[in-house]
Amino acid sequence: MIEFEDIKAAHQRIKAHINHTPVVSSSLLNQWLGHEVYFKLELLQKVGAFKARGGCNAVQLLKERHPDIKRVVANSSGNHAQAVAWSAAKLGIPATIYMPTFASKVKAQATRAYGAEVVQLGTRQAVDQAVAEAAEQPGVYWIPPFNDEAVIAGQGTACLEALDQMVQPVDAVMAPCGGGGLISGTLVATRKLLPQALVMAAEPLAGDDAMRSYQSGVIQKLDSAPDTLADGAMTLSVGEKTFEHIRQLDDFFAVEEAPMIYWSQWLAHLLKLHVEPTSAMVMNAVCQWLRQQQQPRKVLVILTGGNIDAATMRTIWQHDHLQQIPDLGSSLC
Amino acid sequence: MIEFEDIKAAHQRIKAHINHTPVVSSSLLNQWLGHEVYFKLELLQKVGAFKARGGCNAVQLLKERHPDIKRVVANSSGNHAQAVAWSAAKLGIPATIYMPTFASKVKAQATRAYGAEVVQLGTRQAVDQAVAEAAEQPGVYWIPPFNDEAVIAGQGTACLEALDQMVQPVDAVMAPCGGGGLISGTLVATRKLLPQALVMAAEPLAGDDAMRSYQSGVIQKLDSAPDTLADGAMTLSVGEKTFEHIRQLDDFFAVEEAPMIYWSQWLAHLLKLHVEPTSAMVMNAVCQWLRQQQQPRKVLVILTGGNIDAATMRTIWQHDHLQQIPDLGSSLC
Repeated sequence: MIEFEDIKAAHQRIKAHINHTPVVSSSLLNQWLGHEVYFKLELLQKVGAFKARGGCNAVQLLKERHPDIKRVVANSSGNHAQAVAWSAAKLGIPATIYMPTFASKVKAQATRAYGAEVVQLGTRQAVDQAVAEAAEQPGVYWIPPFNDEAVIAGQGTACLEALDQMVQPVDAVMAPCGGGGLISGTLVATRKLLPQALVMAAEPLAGDDAMRSYQSGVIQKLDSAPDTLADGAMTLSVGEKTFEHIRQLDDFFAVEEAPMIYWSQWLAHLLKLHVEPTSAMVMNAVCQWLRQQQQPRKVLVILTGGNIDAATMRTIWQHDHLQQIPDLGSSLC
Repeated sequence: MIEFEDIKAAHQRIKAHINHTPVVSSSLLNQWLGHEVYFKLELLQKVGAFKARGGCNAVQLLKERHPDIKRVVANSSGNHAQAVAWSAAKLGIPATIYMPTFASKVKAQATRAYGAEVVQLGTRQAVDQAVAEAAEQPGVYWIPPFNDEAVIAGQGTACLEALDQMVQPVDAVMAPCGGGGLISGTLVATRKLLPQALVMAAEPLAGDDAMRSYQSGVIQKLDSAPDTLADGAMTLSVGEKTFEHIRQLDDFFAVEEAPMIYWSQWLAHLLKLHVEPTSAMVMNAVCQWLRQQQQPRKVLVILTGGNIDAATMRTIWQHDHLQQIPDLGSSLC
């Protein structure tokens, strides 16, 4: 398990390369909710997601430990692919990313634009096998998407920075949970810097394996990819390394698709940001928690990314939810 | 006509109240275009649009000149309404905004949330008449949306700030033209701070009255509101005050609806920002100009606002344009 010192070291390692993203709030939203919500804007991070932090830390650590490193490889159809491609290019190391052919063209294009070789294969199994074979070559190293100490420590730097940017302490920190890299690093950073604050996670109800793992104390696995707009939290299960952190969380919330869409619209409208559903989802978890509170609270939310395909945008804006102002009394919130 | 000193004075007057919005660029976009485009993010301005600058300057000047001021009034269905409401609240002056009943609920709600009284009337004529009658009361002052020196000077502060934020000079500055307040202030600021740079405007082809005014030397008027997604540039004609500036522009570009939609998608995707079509439209004007250039150019674009209703978002994302990378060879760009 990683410790706070690992996150501090990661931040020293990556801070010259990554964006020091801002923390913002919406006075209208705070007025309507009667609480204060602060947003760490990781969608304005390199590659459009916090994943640049973990990727950059992992690639840099590999380079320090293996000066003869020849190449890094990763298997991903999403933001982790771009993060590894970007990090490797930054540090002058060749990268090959294995992606399923059904991954979005835009993500493959962006990964190539960051300078990586992209190999597309027909099935996820073929992708996983290809990356495993590649990593057997001497000097070639695999960078896992979340179940890895260097990656977890890197993701923890988002919360480290945010708590440093806040003028006043918050009562709670919330982030989404896919494989658990971000929420694990967030937990370790918060426990050290703000031990009285609660750390809580959000997950789509359609794929609530992590919440069930948290509740049962045993890692639960989904049989197949869940049907959810929160494509950053579709992972079939958390990892053994992330689970050791996840079991220490203060609470876990499952979120239905409707409030995810509602908050995708409202965060765009209030913050003027292109917030992906996996991030917007967290606002419903925030509201579930705020409904239990007897006094005004301050909450920090990590807005994890802004990589959204056109089909998802079409689904988000199919109906008009901007007519209904955020209100803790409404179940849509 | 306003002068540079008016813009400088406006900036001194409003800078403690408004956001000092960032200037950003996209390395992927610059790589694809072969030029450098810089964006001044006025969609992150108070009330989600540059209009807060002109409103704030106008209200503050009125307060200085008329210490017995009792109320400000405005007629608007859009961002100017919110700008006047917000500015008046900031300076402790009551405000009444007259809006047509067909204005979007969201904008009426936001205007009320900023503390203004909102009066909704059935027709635009009724709205205009009501504001004219209100402004006849002693101590009550009308704040026009664009044809006003204080408003023009306030809007010019966006460009003043942006040119100060740029590390290197740009070859051109581009902004949309509705009533002409922003482009007029932008012209005056640029002529003084960067006299060798071109200043150019963009307008929807569906409502190209300002371009035809510019070309003919006489103010042209539309008979009715044009059918365009660029709702910030639907004004029926420019004003006599703004036209004196507009006629000095270096060029004027009309933009079709398809590239407006294309760039609304791509700016959201590349910048992770909720950019309104009136702002995204300018990118097509930029491309029209870049196609004529023989060497790499630097362009500053003012991204004017991020207030978009759900119906417009639905239209923007109806088809997937993210599969087609920005390319000056394509007419969609």
